[in-house]
Amino acid sequence: MPNPTAAMLVIGDEILSGRTRDANMHYLAGQLTEMGIDLKEVRVVSDDREAIITSVQALSANYAHVFTSGGIGPTHDDITADCIAAAFGVHIDVRADARALLQAHYDRSGLELNAARLRMARIPDGAELIDNPVSTAPGFSLGNVHVMAGVPSVFTAMVASVLPKLTGGAPLLSRTLRLFKAEGDIAGPLGAFADAYPDLSVGSYPFQKDGIYGSNIVVRGSDPERLDMAMANLEAQFPA
Amino acid sequence: MPNPTAAMLVIGDEILSGRTRDANMHYLAGQLTEMGIDLKEVRVVSDDREAIITSVQALSANYAHVFTSGGIGPTHDDITADCIAAAFGVHIDVRADARALLQAHYDRSGLELNAARLRMARIPDGAELIDNPVSTAPGFSLGNVHVMAGVPSVFTAMVASVLPKLTGGAPLLSRTLRLFKAEGDIAGPLGAFADAYPDLSVGSYPFQKDGIYGSNIVVRGSDPERLDMAMANLEAQFPA
Repeated sequence: MPNPTAAMLVIGDEILSGRTRDANMHYLAGQLTEMGIDLKEVRVVSDDREAIITSVQALSANYAHVFTSGGIGPTHDDITADCIAAAFGVHIDVRADARALLQAHYDRSGLELNAARLRMARIPDGAELIDNPVSTAPGFSLGNVHVMAGVPSVFTAMVASVLPKLTGGAPLLSRTLRLFKAEGDIAGPLGAFADAYPDLSVGSYPFQKDGIYGSNIVVRGSDPERLDMAMANLEAQFPA
Repeated sequence: MPNPTAAMLVIGDEILSGRTRDANMHYLAGQLTEMGIDLKEVRVVSDDREAIITSVQALSANYAHVFTSGGIGPTHDDITADCIAAAFGVHIDVRADARALLQAHYDRSGLELNAARLRMARIPDGAELIDNPVSTAPGFSLGNVHVMAGVPSVFTAMVASVLPKLTGGAPLLSRTLRLFKAEGDIAGPLGAFADAYPDLSVGSYPFQKDGIYGSNIVVRGSDPERLDMAMANLEAQFPA
């Protein structure tokens, strides 16, 4: 059975302007690979209602899971929850369970649960809350879309809350052969090798070190014995 | 006149598997912002023919410029050039000008211009070459799509070759006010401030330092005087 597929939607002007370097994509990619969910596409869009709605609808229709990052805080530019509700055509308002979480949190911290903070309790009808052990304000899952915060520490914690609930596939394993040969010198036999193992993914990633050209050959697949066999074959073709 | 828009397409299994952390998106975002081209969307797709063609067509239709990164080397997984040709419905083959560049380069290095390396001279009909001062194998521009290498040092050099040929707009400037106040405490007045300056973009980015919650308020726009006025107003509302 093929692995479940996934896409990610990163939401935020600060990524597209170059102010902030996104960290969540790389983190989520590694986590999904470990549990056998194949991340097939990532989109980054600005804090724009139409862009978010259109992207969520397209990705939700095409992949088993969609993970979003960003735009669920208390300020005016945090519009993700409302956009997700609109994308699914469901009602959204402050919800009692989310409000209770925030009320308890702010009571403990001696801060006021004001109108701005209450925005973080806006949850679309039918969504399931995602636990946020870092700063309480929850994410949520609606249909196959999992909505999480953009702050990396919170995103990481929410990913840890969500992934155990999902069914993974066979984890994608990878083996790397580091060759001190230029890609152009190995591309012919490497292409033949890739053709001989159509069930494995074979990638070549060039590097340059101390003026020497090299290539990391990465072979990916879910069957460890098959990978071992392929790597033995590869090493025999390109002895150190 | 509004600034020209742009999108980026990052191509590569290694990004989506979490093996490699992409660096090119952040770099290009900063460069485009400086020259007044608004990066509106980024997509990351795998080394998959259909995914690349579909994304290129969608982005090329929706934005003034599209920049791609990855998949133009000599190995079997380098399929970007052929996909771009297919997306535009034009013929592709080894082209004399690109071949001459490679021939001279490999003659100098005493290496053979073999079949694999010749793949890097495959250029769609009608495309204009992008200079690669790092490792010679050129990128190309076809229509509004600029096709560049994924290796960061080469990507950076190709961006430097392409951007001076494009017409930019008013550079997007940004000013930041760092407040040691939690987002939830400033969100109300901050929203009113954003409403009062509809021509500026106002973002709020929370941080936590030594246990204290804070927010970086970033105001973006292209008119420096207007930005100064807005920042004076903002600082008056939130004295240090």
